[in-house]
Amino acid sequence: MPLVEGFGFSTEVRVRFAETDAQGIAHHAGFVVWLEVARIEYLDRFDGGYSSLQRSGLEALTLEVFVRYLAPARFDDRLRIQARCTDVRGARFRFEYLLDRTGEPIAEAWTAHATVAARSLRPTRTPGWLVDAIAAAES
Amino acid sequence: MPLVEGFGFSTEVRVRFAETDAQGIAHHAGFVVWLEVARIEYLDRFDGGYSSLQRSGLEALTLEVFVRYLAPARFDDRLRIQARCTDVRGARFRFEYLLDRTGEPIAEAWTAHATVAARSLRPTRTPGWLVDAIAAAES
Amino acid sequence: MPLVEGFGFSTEVRVRFAETDAQGIAHHAGFVVWLEVARIEYLDRFDGGYSSLQRSGLEALTLEVFVRYLAPARFDDRLRIQARCTDVRGARFRFEYLLDRTGEPIAEAWTAHATVAARSLRPTRTPGWLVDAIAAAES
Amino acid sequence: MPLVEGFGFSTEVRVRFAETDAQGIAHHAGFVVWLEVARIEYLDRFDGGYSSLQRSGLEALTLEVFVRYLAPARFDDRLRIQARCTDVRGARFRFEYLLDRTGEPIAEAWTAHATVAARSLRPTRTPGWLVDAIAAAES
Repeated sequence: MPLVEGFGFSTEVRVRFAETDAQGIAHHAGFVVWLEVARIEYLDRFDGGYSSLQRSGLEALTLEVFVRYLAPARFDDRLRIQARCTDVRGARFRFEYLLDRTGEPIAEAWTAHATVAARSLRPTRTPGWLVDAIAAAES
Repeated sequence: MPLVEGFGFSTEVRVRFAETDAQGIAHHAGFVVWLEVARIEYLDRFDGGYSSLQRSGLEALTLEVFVRYLAPARFDDRLRIQARCTDVRGARFRFEYLLDRTGEPIAEAWTAHATVAARSLRPTRTPGWLVDAIAAAES
Repeated sequence: MPLVEGFGFSTEVRVRFAETDAQGIAHHAGFVVWLEVARIEYLDRFDGGYSSLQRSGLEALTLEVFVRYLAPARFDDRLRIQARCTDVRGARFRFEYLLDRTGEPIAEAWTAHATVAARSLRPTRTPGWLVDAIAAAES
Repeated sequence: MPLVEGFGFSTEVRVRFAETDAQGIAHHAGFVVWLEVARIEYLDRFDGGYSSLQRSGLEALTLEVFVRYLAPARFDDRLRIQARCTDVRGARFRFEYLLDRTGEPIAEAWTAHATVAARSLRPTRTPGWLVDAIAAAES
């Protein structure tokens, strides 16, 4: 997977104590939450971000999640999450991620999504302003 | 606190691995989730339970939470949660809890709640059918 | 993916209110916790289960997680999780899952794991008793 | 409760989507996690912070939690958490908190703790360097 290069966006999370488990490491389910934090911050750069999507009566559903854990993360670690949005088509889009701790790879991941009408949860074409903003950000 | 006696209801939770932390014990925030699980199961015994409350356009908000941790719980522990509902007045009600592991006290707790209109989140009198069901259960 | 057939094990989770999100559905990260709950119960059937693994100084790490969400789950839904363990080789093993709500597919998933020494988190051959128990269960 | 005045420390959390629930608001259990985030950042200002406590073979247990919810928090809200440490005596100490959203009170809370030996989880006098650092910070 050519996940290592070509990320134009990154954010940081700090491992909370509540996110650790009895193995003494960050529990693997917490990574899925961090990916979402990264997506929200990725979209923040655009006109109104995720809230703007919601104001147009849309939500983004998660259709697929994949995470490959490369090294344990621990309490208080500051993890950089690089993210990029790819394959925006119709109602669908996809994110790819690389998590590292000062350069050491911690996890790689991708998620697949669809924009849906908030009430019915039915697939609805991703709004043009968002498609354009993503295309500009990733070009 | 006379929490030890007089519980007519109990349920059980089993500590999930995801609920432990790097101290090797169940993280203290998870107890607050378990209290909610107990409340839902407490209400299940009544006509339609919490879902019935929701169908009448109501939700129950949590106004206050208190937990006193008496002994650590660990992965895979089966905890009994005894619960009772008290002080149903107007839109308000209160739950008291005792958690134990085969008789050993693990935590005691209480929570305060209000029934609210689902849209506005404004306090709304607890429906008579629920007040009566609780009164019957706790008498 | 031939995930639909051939499961010899299943368990049930009930969607907690704390596991829902502002889309009104079960948050996608919670599924990863439920898969772990299913694995623990899967292993419970064997001699001492996961705790027995821990008593021999081992832990099981999660190396990869994949979830495909097929339909939203909601508060209070009772979800059946079918699970099977496959590809036990050296220190590695893999689980496959199918989640349904009274027959309606909700999600399919797989996870990859390694048994490791608890202190060093280094890969360590899965104990023979567990390999044999899994082989017997899945044959 | 004179919680409103006299806080010398504050930090900020941003409500994650995963922390919301089907009422459309931040789930009440998440506040307990945020209090912990605030404590960790409070201690960060001192020599080595919480990690330093751990390196001396100690952990801090949570003995009691109280939260009073004053107004709902919502997805993406930035909440200021003011915190102060009080009543450091022997192995025990206590934190008080006030959460607000640009001045609007969202919750008030307090938690009680004990420093314990990491292995035995038995109460152990809070180290002098930490007692002194807290006293200096709160004077």
